[in-house]
Amino acid sequence: MTKTAVVALGGNALTRLGQSGTAEEMADNAATMAACVNDVIEAGWRVVVVHGNGPQVGNLALQQEATTAVPPQPLALLNAMTQGELGSLIASAVNALRGPGAAAALVTHVTVGQADPAFAAPSKPIGPFFTADEAEHLAGTRGWIMHPDSGRGYRRVVPSPEPTGIVEIGAIRALVDAGCLVIACGGGGIPVDASGGHAAGIDAVIDKDRAASLMARLLGAQALVLVTAVDHVMINYGTPRQAALRSITTDEAESHLRAGQFPPGSMGPKIEAALSFLAGGGEWAAITSPGLVAATLSGEEWAGTRIERSPSQVVQGR
Amino acid sequence: MTKTAVVALGGNALTRLGQSGTAEEMADNAATMAACVNDVIEAGWRVVVVHGNGPQVGNLALQQEATTAVPPQPLALLNAMTQGELGSLIASAVNALRGPGAAAALVTHVTVGQADPAFAAPSKPIGPFFTADEAEHLAGTRGWIMHPDSGRGYRRVVPSPEPTGIVEIGAIRALVDAGCLVIACGGGGIPVDASGGHAAGIDAVIDKDRAASLMARLLGAQALVLVTAVDHVMINYGTPRQAALRSITTDEAESHLRAGQFPPGSMGPKIEAALSFLAGGGEWAAITSPGLVAATLSGEEWAGTRIERSPSQVVQGR
Repeated sequence: MTKTAVVALGGNALTRLGQSGTAEEMADNAATMAACVNDVIEAGWRVVVVHGNGPQVGNLALQQEATTAVPPQPLALLNAMTQGELGSLIASAVNALRGPGAAAALVTHVTVGQADPAFAAPSKPIGPFFTADEAEHLAGTRGWIMHPDSGRGYRRVVPSPEPTGIVEIGAIRALVDAGCLVIACGGGGIPVDASGGHAAGIDAVIDKDRAASLMARLLGAQALVLVTAVDHVMINYGTPRQAALRSITTDEAESHLRAGQFPPGSMGPKIEAALSFLAGGGEWAAITSPGLVAATLSGEEWAGTRIERSPSQVVQGR
Repeated sequence: MTKTAVVALGGNALTRLGQSGTAEEMADNAATMAACVNDVIEAGWRVVVVHGNGPQVGNLALQQEATTAVPPQPLALLNAMTQGELGSLIASAVNALRGPGAAAALVTHVTVGQADPAFAAPSKPIGPFFTADEAEHLAGTRGWIMHPDSGRGYRRVVPSPEPTGIVEIGAIRALVDAGCLVIACGGGGIPVDASGGHAAGIDAVIDKDRAASLMARLLGAQALVLVTAVDHVMINYGTPRQAALRSITTDEAESHLRAGQFPPGSMGPKIEAALSFLAGGGEWAAITSPGLVAATLSGEEWAGTRIERSPSQVVQGR
C-alpha cells in the first residue's frame, strides 16, 4: 500500500529573502523544491504539495495598485493568480525531474465559516508598505484595515480564518489515485463561503499549514510534513537549556505549546497544524528544513522533528 | 456510455466589449457561461471547458508594466496567472449551479515545437497599446517585437505556434473519469518545450481553439464546440447571397475554406480547428453562440452550425 504525505512549503521557498521575485529566481527555487519532493517520491510516497504565496501575492498586490488604467482585482483572485503562477513553476520543475505529466496543479478553493472570529480581528499583513497618508487614503477609499508594521510603514491586514473544507478534495483524491504529484491549496486556498460559490467579498488569507493539515486529514494521509527554514523545532530557544526536538509525542508537543515554548507567529501555528492532523488520525507529522525532508520521512534519527500520536490519544473520525 | 464534449469559450465571454474587467463583471459573465455549460451537462454530456484570456492577460500585462518596484513576469507566467484567476471564477460559477466540487480547474501546459514557423513571424498582438516612442524603448530594452495596431498605437506581437501535446492530458482524463467538469488549457495553455519543462523564454500564445481541438482529439471526445459571438458560420458574408450554414460536411467546410469564405483572423482558425478534430476521429464539431450551445448539441435543426465528417474521409489514428 502506497502511503501519502502532504508536504507544505513556504512562499519564501520560491522567492527567498533578499530576492525580488523574478521568474528566473522562482524557477531556480522551484527546481530546488522539486528535488526535495522528488526524494520523497523516490522513497515510495505519494505526495501532495501545498505552497505559500506571501512574497508573490505581495508583488501582485503592488502591481495591481500601480495604475488606475485597469481595475485592481480582489485578494481572492490575486491568490488564484498565484496558484496558477506557482503551480505552473512547481509542476514544471517536478516534470523536469520525473517526466511531463508527473505533476498536476489544481486551482483550489477552501471554505471558511462566516462566523469565524478571525473576521472580527484581521491580523495577517499582506502586500506592500504604505506611508501614513497613503494608508489613511486606502482605508477611506477601499475600506482596508491598515496597521503599522515593523516600523517600515503601514500594511493592509486581513482576517486569517480557520479552513473548514476543501471544495476540490474529490478532484485531489482522483489525481493522487491516478499517480500524479498534486499541487493544491496554494497560498492556503482561495477562501469561499460554505456553499462553495465564489466569494469575491471574502478578503482573507488562510494559513497554508492549516490548509495542509486539513487536506492531510481529508485525504487520510499518513504523514504531514511542514517545511520551514529551520532543521528542528527548538525548546528553551535562546537560553542555556536550548534543545532541538527530534521525536516527540502529541502529549509532549501540547505541553510545550501550553508552556509558551512556540511563538504564535511562527512555530506555534505549525505545531497546532501538526496536532490537529494527528488528532484526526494521521500517523505522524514532521517539521524540518527542505534538505532534511526525505531523511525525516525515512525516520533517520539525525533528521528533523517528528511528532507522533501519544498512545493514549483518542482519534477523531476521519 | 457518456459522451464527452470539449467546449471552447472566448476570453471576451468573461470580460465583454466595453467592460473594464472588474471581478464583479467577470463573475457575472462566468455565471452566464456556467448556465450554458450546465445545459450541456444536463443533456448528458461530460464537459471539458477551454477558455480564452485575451482581455485578462492584457490587463495583467498593463499592471505588470506600471511599476518598476517589482519585476514584471514573462508572458508564460501571466498566462498561468489567468488560468488561476479565470479557472477560479468559472469553477465557482459552475459549483454554484451543480454543488461544491462539481468543477475542477487544472493549470495546463501545452507543448510547442521550437522549429514552428510561427516563431519566425510573430503575429498575435497582446497587452496594452503604446506610443511610437514607448514602443521603440520597449523594443530596445525588452527585445519585444512591436507592431502598429488598429491606428491606436503600437502593441507587442508574439508567435502563435501550433500546439503539439498537452502535458496534463492524463490528469484531465482522470478528472473527467471522476465526473468533474474540467477547466483546462486556459488561454490556449502555457507553452512549454517538448520536454515539458518550464520554458519561461517561450513568449508565445497558443490559439485556444487549436488547443481545444487537440484536447478533444487526445481525449477521444465525440464533440468539439467552439463558442463565439455569432449563431452560425456564414458564407458569402455581406453579399446578397449571404447564407447561414446549419449542417455541413468536412468536404463542404474545406471547400469553403479554400474558396476564402472564412477570414484568417476570425472564423478561419475555428473551421481549421473543427476540421482537424474531425480528421482525428471526432464525430462532429459545432460553431455557435452561447445561447445555442445546448440546442446545437441536441441536434436541433434551428440551432448553430454543425460540421460532420464526410463519409469518404479517412480517420487518422487517435
